[in-house]
Amino acid sequence: MTSKPLNYLQENNERLQEKLNEFLSIPSVSTDSVHKEDVDKAGKFVAAYLNEIGFNSVEVIKTKGHPLVYGEWLGAGSDAPTALFYGHYDVQPADPLELWESDPFKPEIRYGRLYARGASDDKGQVFMHLAVFEAFLKTEGNLPINVKVCIEGEEEIGSENLYDLLQQKKEQFAADFAVISDSGMVDTGQPTILYGLKGFTGLEFTLTGPENDLHSGMYGGAIRNPIMAMSHLLSTMKDMDEVVQVEGFYDSVEDITEEERQLIKDVPSEDFVQSTGVTQTVSEKGYTAKEHTMARPTLEINGMFGGYQGEGTKTIIPSSATAKLTCRLVPNQEPDHIQQLLVDHLEKHVPAGVRLKVKREPLSAKAYKVDPNHPLIEKAATSYEKAFGKEVVYVRMGGSIPVVEWIDSIYDIPVVLLGFGTPEDRLHSPNESFPIENFEKGMETLVYYWEEVNKQ
Amino acid sequence: MTSKPLNYLQENNERLQEKLNEFLSIPSVSTDSVHKEDVDKAGKFVAAYLNEIGFNSVEVIKTKGHPLVYGEWLGAGSDAPTALFYGHYDVQPADPLELWESDPFKPEIRYGRLYARGASDDKGQVFMHLAVFEAFLKTEGNLPINVKVCIEGEEEIGSENLYDLLQQKKEQFAADFAVISDSGMVDTGQPTILYGLKGFTGLEFTLTGPENDLHSGMYGGAIRNPIMAMSHLLSTMKDMDEVVQVEGFYDSVEDITEEERQLIKDVPSEDFVQSTGVTQTVSEKGYTAKEHTMARPTLEINGMFGGYQGEGTKTIIPSSATAKLTCRLVPNQEPDHIQQLLVDHLEKHVPAGVRLKVKREPLSAKAYKVDPNHPLIEKAATSYEKAFGKEVVYVRMGGSIPVVEWIDSIYDIPVVLLGFGTPEDRLHSPNESFPIENFEKGMETLVYYWEEVNKQ
Repeated sequence: MTSKPLNYLQENNERLQEKLNEFLSIPSVSTDSVHKEDVDKAGKFVAAYLNEIGFNSVEVIKTKGHPLVYGEWLGAGSDAPTALFYGHYDVQPADPLELWESDPFKPEIRYGRLYARGASDDKGQVFMHLAVFEAFLKTEGNLPINVKVCIEGEEEIGSENLYDLLQQKKEQFAADFAVISDSGMVDTGQPTILYGLKGFTGLEFTLTGPENDLHSGMYGGAIRNPIMAMSHLLSTMKDMDEVVQVEGFYDSVEDITEEERQLIKDVPSEDFVQSTGVTQTVSEKGYTAKEHTMARPTLEINGMFGGYQGEGTKTIIPSSATAKLTCRLVPNQEPDHIQQLLVDHLEKHVPAGVRLKVKREPLSAKAYKVDPNHPLIEKAATSYEKAFGKEVVYVRMGGSIPVVEWIDSIYDIPVVLLGFGTPEDRLHSPNESFPIENFEKGMETLVYYWEEVNKQ
Repeated sequence: MTSKPLNYLQENNERLQEKLNEFLSIPSVSTDSVHKEDVDKAGKFVAAYLNEIGFNSVEVIKTKGHPLVYGEWLGAGSDAPTALFYGHYDVQPADPLELWESDPFKPEIRYGRLYARGASDDKGQVFMHLAVFEAFLKTEGNLPINVKVCIEGEEEIGSENLYDLLQQKKEQFAADFAVISDSGMVDTGQPTILYGLKGFTGLEFTLTGPENDLHSGMYGGAIRNPIMAMSHLLSTMKDMDEVVQVEGFYDSVEDITEEERQLIKDVPSEDFVQSTGVTQTVSEKGYTAKEHTMARPTLEINGMFGGYQGEGTKTIIPSSATAKLTCRLVPNQEPDHIQQLLVDHLEKHVPAGVRLKVKREPLSAKAYKVDPNHPLIEKAATSYEKAFGKEVVYVRMGGSIPVVEWIDSIYDIPVVLLGFGTPEDRLHSPNESFPIENFEKGMETLVYYWEEVNKQ
């Protein structure tokens, strides 16, 4: 460590750790109205921190739900790039409490990990950014670039008011690129560039045959069984080679390039058989499980039900069967268009003798992908490697982060995902934790990154 | 009406109606321990009636559950045939009580129907037999044939102790044929010969993929979805033409003869579309819905469940999916063998990546069929036609009546099903009733039948 900010972080390590603990001790559970004041308190903590280190225009922006904290430091001048930093100060509920080995809101270090609700998701990672801003401002009097900070209090309840706010404040929040640290690395100590997320669409549908459950003896042989009809219909949607059979589904999908196949190959593999308990993995014909999970679209049945579910036997023909279905999408697959293809497929293949009723899932998300060779991504890779002493891997993830798509679609700027979590962090579960080492190396990465970005 | 017993029935109509009402007023609900004494009381009513009209060896045979009432009248001599008459004196619960228009245990006549729990199933029909025996014995001093009466008190709870009792009392209950009046006619006023019942076998099976529900974004593309696997597996079992695809399933099935096709064609059709609300009927390729329901085996999924069933969307790959499956069998299909074929099929077709676990349904029943040209059936037809003034129709039914199969397998004697119920009787439901006309014509039929059977 040579630069002043890095020295500052090291020297102030203990004080910063105490300050982080103070932040983590606030039970800012956004879903629970009992904690409304705590959520406010956590927001005020962020605002106070920003004011304290010299950010300007700090405000706690009210929404219909929990407030968003905004602050900016634009002292790098109009020639320097401006970053929009997004994070959230709310957390998941801590229950079941009895499964925690220490109080979720009394941070405790054990075996090199800091245990607390929010340690990884996302207070810990937000705090790292704030501490790095402090280090720059306290030692050099300025940041290498301009920064706008948006920290919301509703991420864990679906960011209900964020989309509207991002639209309303488009001018105020305008930036050249966005940075988010609300994700993770593929392995502890393995710096990871997350350069793509999948999109999402879904629907629920019901097949109804007879108006009521029927006696299987009296009516079996005359009536289409809705569960059997559902089985036939579902099996037209994806074949045994895991290839989706919905017409047009793959039409706009870009095939994986050789370069990307190599990037995916380089990612350390999760042993899916070991981690999930399946007998073997299956994936789309022509693609490895890693390629399919990261970079190919999927269609999954999330739930299905019909007829008798109790113990033993009930000899009925059920009146109906219902299935819930979601797809994870890749870039260029338009969620609404794919949803329409699904509906078209169902309507075309519904067996005679049952009625189809579709309920479209209103929520959707586009896939997001940034060019892994984009200069901002290359700088991130360089910074990670310098801090962690290890070559980065590039991953795309099957999950969706709505805010990424929103920033992409409203602001049309690149989003850099600088995540420092690890697979062992137990997000949303009892005993959430974050490795102490990643606080240190993460902040180091951020110091390098802001400096790198300034070198245009 | 010319014969003495018929005159007797007419003259004593009012008194017999009162006696039936007394029988129906006993709430002999076998499933409810609160009614244990009532069940006993109903059994004693039957025993007292048998004694009163001159039956011998009347006994209330104790079982582990509710007793079986036995009585015999063997005065026709060893040259005359002996009939075993089976019925039951227990009834279904009456709830929900608020849906009854009159007290289920205070019989009431409205618009030509007698409303009471058990009016049709089976106290009303048992009583008709007892009254006919009374009429013969009081007017002619004897019955045309020998009769052994077995009236059980556990039919509505699965005849739990009947099978063992039928085996233990094989010598005592021995007869040349059996008569049961616990079924119905296809239409009010349409005498119906029920000459076949289907058998039954079933199983439940579960496909398990991952040990827990998985994030569909993280794992979609690597893991076989158990619901999709279930859909593929189920759709291998029956095709869209409603033909079962399980190897060997039809091997021992006798095809429907031209004569039988004609019998089935002659049965007045239920309008399945109207009565069930389906858009259209479907049936096995090459067979009409009537042929399939009456005389061809079926395979039905009675229930299925897996994954998320709540409102909205939960983006998971479920850990498992479960289906419940039963088959209705025709003569020569051995239930255990068919169950084994089902298991073999599942094991052969289970998709890679999921584990199969099968739970065999222990209950099963063989199909039953008596030759519609059997003399005992022809005599039944003649008697029905004489009483109802209308040609009989011959039907096979998709349902199963376990006692029929048990008598068939233990005693190896023909079973004559002389049912007088109608489709409007609302068995097991609120407002059960029985048409008064069918009491009269039913008893008339029985008088003719016993006389016919005597003419060897």
